Amino acid sequence: MKYGARNAISAKVKSVKKGDVMSLVKFDVTSPATMASVLTTESVEEMGLNPGDKVLLVVKAIHVLPVKE
Amino acid sequence: MKYGARNAISAKVKSVKKGDVMSLVKFDVTSPATMASVLTTESVEEMGLNPGDKVLLVVKAIHVLPVKE
Amino acid sequence: MKYGARNAISAKVKSVKKGDVMSLVKFDVTSPATMASVLTTESVEEMGLNPGDKVLLVVKAIHVLPVKE
Amino acid sequence: MKYGARNAISAKVKSVKKGDVMSLVKFDVTSPATMASVLTTESVEEMGLNPGDKVLLVVKAIHVLPVKE
Amino acid sequence: MKYGARNAISAKVKSVKKGDVMSLVKFDVTSPATMASVLTTESVEEMGLNPGDKVLLVVKAIHVLPVKE
Amino acid sequence: MKYGARNAISAKVKSVKKGDVMSLVKFDVTSPATMASVLTTESVEEMGLNPGDKVLLVVKAIHVLPVKE
Repeated sequence: MKYGARNAISAKVKSVKKGDVMSLVKFDVTSPATMASVLTTESVEEMGLNPGDKVLLVVKAIHVLPVKE
Repeated sequence: MKYGARNAISAKVKSVKKGDVMSLVKFDVTSPATMASVLTTESVEEMGLNPGDKVLLVVKAIHVLPVKE
Repeated sequence: MKYGARNAISAKVKSVKKGDVMSLVKFDVTSPATMASVLTTESVEEMGLNPGDKVLLVVKAIHVLPVKE
Repeated sequence: MKYGARNAISAKVKSVKKGDVMSLVKFDVTSPATMASVLTTESVEEMGLNPGDKVLLVVKAIHVLPVKE
Repeated sequence: MKYGARNAISAKVKSVKKGDVMSLVKFDVTSPATMASVLTTESVEEMGLNPGDKVLLVVKAIHVLPVKE
Repeated sequence: MKYGARNAISAKVKSVKKGDVMSLVKFDVTSPATMASVLTTESVEEMGLNPGDKVLLVVKAIHVLPVKE
């Protein structure tokens, strides 16, 4: 399987909270991960992003797609 | 700082590839992370997601927002 | 009307399931569609995407915007 | 393979346009599809969405994830 | 026209920067706007969001869909 | 704080509607804003977007990330 996405993180389901239409699922990440972000070059320059910089990677839960093989 | 997002992962910039309008930045995740996903309850049920299940969490790089403090 | 999006698919509402805050709506696609994806060039190369290849196009329901004229 | 997404559309690659960081890929949809959208209940009510209504489903190309098996 | 989205902001194009595959367009907002966000109830509670609170609304440019009538 | 996003809009919480898993929050924008969109160059050309053009910027509420400092 090959995914058209830069981030594919191995994880294990920790909890499932079912709502009427949407559900919230939590996971433990099981292997050290690298991640990737695409943003405007303008943002990269304004932030002054350089190798070694510490950042926080913020991702809304709605953008995380679980795949079960 | 409080973010309206379930995922906030500490990371360090590894590389920056600048394009004309968009750039691709890669990161090393510096601490073991838990992650969260919101999906339809219908998807949770069709996938049969239960605690302990192994999954792959797929996230397009465009949805990853770096924040530098 | 012109939309800044590559995908605009004609469809007919099949069902509506209303929740407290979010709702899930299903549609029958009424005309054969072509679709487009934007992804990193790195992903295209790792996947080895070439004309003729069979793929599955996965789209979270949250990213589908219905417009009623 | 089970995906945490309501839309999984069979398609065939038609063209690939590679850019420096991002690429645009076009597809022919190979089977008639049904699609699903999640939106706020407030939007559903303001739009007055009912079974049988004709709509346009607008999806930015960046939200389409190709998967190659 | 009715859109399945809570945010529809009137604006005027200020500049267009065309890249090989993606372009960056800037706008002046022409009318005072209200905006809406959907997030997990868990996030709302952890943030302690209450009427009157000052916040910053962060939106990646990729999630903004221009429509020209 | 520097965000890897082109849009950061100052706003004040107007109302909070909590659901079982997801909540809908509304805001008054407190300062006139400029906004930015990234879309395919192909879309820019088909729309014929030029400085001065009037547009509607449509953003699903799910893509709006509130940050509280």
